[in-house]
Amino acid sequence: MKHFVSMQDLSEQEMYKLIKKADQISRGGARPLNRQYFAANLFFEPSTRTKMSFVVAQRRLGIEVLDFMAEVSSVTKGESIYDTARTFESIGADLIVLRHQEENIARKLADAIQTPVINAGDGTGEHPTQSLLDLVTIYQEFEQFKGLKVVIAGDIKHSRVARSNAIALSTLGCEIYLTGMETWQDSSLRFPYISMDEAVEMADVLMLLRIQHERHQDHLAFDQNSYLQTYGLTIERERKMKKHAVILHPAPVNRGVEIDSSLVECERSRIFKQMKNGVAARMAVIQTLLNQGGNYNEEDFNQRHAFIG
Amino acid sequence: MKHFVSMQDLSEQEMYKLIKKADQISRGGARPLNRQYFAANLFFEPSTRTKMSFVVAQRRLGIEVLDFMAEVSSVTKGESIYDTARTFESIGADLIVLRHQEENIARKLADAIQTPVINAGDGTGEHPTQSLLDLVTIYQEFEQFKGLKVVIAGDIKHSRVARSNAIALSTLGCEIYLTGMETWQDSSLRFPYISMDEAVEMADVLMLLRIQHERHQDHLAFDQNSYLQTYGLTIERERKMKKHAVILHPAPVNRGVEIDSSLVECERSRIFKQMKNGVAARMAVIQTLLNQGGNYNEEDFNQRHAFIG
Amino acid sequence: MKHFVSMQDLSEQEMYKLIKKADQISRGGARPLNRQYFAANLFFEPSTRTKMSFVVAQRRLGIEVLDFMAEVSSVTKGESIYDTARTFESIGADLIVLRHQEENIARKLADAIQTPVINAGDGTGEHPTQSLLDLVTIYQEFEQFKGLKVVIAGDIKHSRVARSNAIALSTLGCEIYLTGMETWQDSSLRFPYISMDEAVEMADVLMLLRIQHERHQDHLAFDQNSYLQTYGLTIERERKMKKHAVILHPAPVNRGVEIDSSLVECERSRIFKQMKNGVAARMAVIQTLLNQGGNYNEEDFNQRHAFIG
Repeated sequence: MKHFVSMQDLSEQEMYKLIKKADQISRGGARPLNRQYFAANLFFEPSTRTKMSFVVAQRRLGIEVLDFMAEVSSVTKGESIYDTARTFESIGADLIVLRHQEENIARKLADAIQTPVINAGDGTGEHPTQSLLDLVTIYQEFEQFKGLKVVIAGDIKHSRVARSNAIALSTLGCEIYLTGMETWQDSSLRFPYISMDEAVEMADVLMLLRIQHERHQDHLAFDQNSYLQTYGLTIERERKMKKHAVILHPAPVNRGVEIDSSLVECERSRIFKQMKNGVAARMAVIQTLLNQGGNYNEEDFNQRHAFIG
Repeated sequence: MKHFVSMQDLSEQEMYKLIKKADQISRGGARPLNRQYFAANLFFEPSTRTKMSFVVAQRRLGIEVLDFMAEVSSVTKGESIYDTARTFESIGADLIVLRHQEENIARKLADAIQTPVINAGDGTGEHPTQSLLDLVTIYQEFEQFKGLKVVIAGDIKHSRVARSNAIALSTLGCEIYLTGMETWQDSSLRFPYISMDEAVEMADVLMLLRIQHERHQDHLAFDQNSYLQTYGLTIERERKMKKHAVILHPAPVNRGVEIDSSLVECERSRIFKQMKNGVAARMAVIQTLLNQGGNYNEEDFNQRHAFIG
Repeated sequence: MKHFVSMQDLSEQEMYKLIKKADQISRGGARPLNRQYFAANLFFEPSTRTKMSFVVAQRRLGIEVLDFMAEVSSVTKGESIYDTARTFESIGADLIVLRHQEENIARKLADAIQTPVINAGDGTGEHPTQSLLDLVTIYQEFEQFKGLKVVIAGDIKHSRVARSNAIALSTLGCEIYLTGMETWQDSSLRFPYISMDEAVEMADVLMLLRIQHERHQDHLAFDQNSYLQTYGLTIERERKMKKHAVILHPAPVNRGVEIDSSLVECERSRIFKQMKNGVAARMAVIQTLLNQGGNYNEEDFNQRHAFIG
């Protein structure tokens, strides 16, 4: 594993390896790395949660953090991501964490530079470390994945988490179902759609998605309470869930929209546990990437150059 | 002491304990803590001085700093402070430092979460670490508080420092007087108002406040020089002060408004010493809070839930 | 050396000392400093590259970084740079790195405070650490400077790098030539102007400058490709360069304007090596400044006060 840009790149075995590593770290911590490393966190979209989770993961490992904010940076001078990344590489970054509004940009960058790239969310593309933390949370609950019924619920079309998770969970042998408003269905994901009422009775894992208000082209004239009643997790629906079933949500939660506010910290909610696992998942990914070394060579100059354009 | 949100929560004895601890740290430093801690600095208002002072205090103690800026964060996605704080708690914050424009919000948050909360200024409410550094500065000068005449001068109505200091200094036995423009008087503070000319002759400690231009609803048609002449500390007034009397100001100073520019670093000014003491004061508070541990339990779930709304 | 604000302050010997120190660090690293130091990075202009380069240099030396962003700080409350710097001094900064749009401000600040000041670019004034990294890069190539033909090309009038480099390189014995559009010539630099076609045949070092679009008063109706053909480094021109000649550029590069995009990483380009050397150069400067100590005294109070105004 040279970069970490998509769950599609991982075999079942590689996933298990990362899941188990993260699970161990979440319980026992991790040893700081053997020398001073620098990570460049290149965030072109605001994100408290993901960014801070990476920072905690990096500092737990003793890694120095270079905090790049697109808003107040040379990118305002028109520099490309490739040149920005090469700059960080030149001044000593051992790792690049990229969040960007453009789909597939993490892979393009990974193909063009030598420094390991972690995709921290690219447009409506993927968000593989978020996916990994979901896997870890499910693994801690059920100890395996085969035959588990996972329902992904909500704004599937605009969710990179949905995409990453659908890929990963089917690789691991889960049965996947989708539920949500018709306008937000995504025909590229070939899993059965069911109603929310069916979902709560069937699911071992109910994976709620955040409504990505900020990604919607049109401001939907959108009644939040009626959405909750039709598509969300109400108190009544939660009561119908299987005894052992758990609720996941990538957060930040729109309280009273995707889920009744009082359920956010209910007994079967793993929402804040997911956040905790997020740190361990990112530590596992970083450890794995950095142990591989990665000496600079010129072999893929052409590929790199194609991206520079 | 589980949180540090208001000087009102502290007994005289607790104040003395913190003052002496801070005084010792200001002279001899402090030992870094025994393990890796993370502090989340949640600043919803810009503040160089306070924020940087906390960062220095935290780094002197070896604490990792999570720098949250409301301007470029998920809060733009509509997340509540409770959810933001719980997120930081989940990813490993051992301490939350909160600055916010809303009065009393630090206490509400402290009641709702388990992680120790330090109030770094809440609206026109309180600013207890600023108060503590003032106390330390006075203590270093006079070695006690009983009977000291302290005059608080200026924009009292909009000053959270005034409020925190009035509470603390009267608990410690000082005689408190107020002075300033009539429109900026605060009827909730029951201390005698005097003129600035009386103030300079009487004060052992002259505590100037910053005019909070940014908090004033209306842009006062405000002549700065005539303000200085009537309400401020001019060169002439400074000459009438008692030999041992000292000048305090929380800074940033409006030079030539609250005080003649040439007096900012005069012999009896303790303005830059206050800043130095600010680091020690914050180290003392943080040390005190973290040594108490603070294991999570569910006892005050209801109180927490009331705040989430 | 008490501050580092201009290449004009350095003798040839002092330059050599810094160059050699930086060269050593670039090859062998440097030992972290003997105690905890704090650096205040005061950036009043956006700058990814320079700021991040300083951060890496500081962290490599084990220095704590205080990251001040003018955009979200008390400076919005109208505080002067002197007061900001004195604040950082009071809370414990051992070093101030200043980038500011006002020419000569770094020297004024250096004259007014005790803490060592590093000029990280002041308006169209100087940018001495950028100059030093260029010197290091040239030194690594040619092992000396005497008689080297250096051509500085481009937007000389708006370039602080041009100014710092012209001073330094002539002190070191280089032959300096200038080339560029007539409107961007700078009459204060008394070196001969030549054409770009002459430049590429003559230069041992071709030092391209960035077109400072953001400094130009008027938006030049500016055809980028015709600029490249007339004044820039085209593929054809690069072929005419001497075998051993190297290309420098302070970056970020305007690809296809100052230089053909495909030449940015060509064999004779030292652009990314310059960035790498930038970290070593800054480490050398910081080490030199901090080893000198610097105890506070009152001797230059008057000079300081003159600046406060």
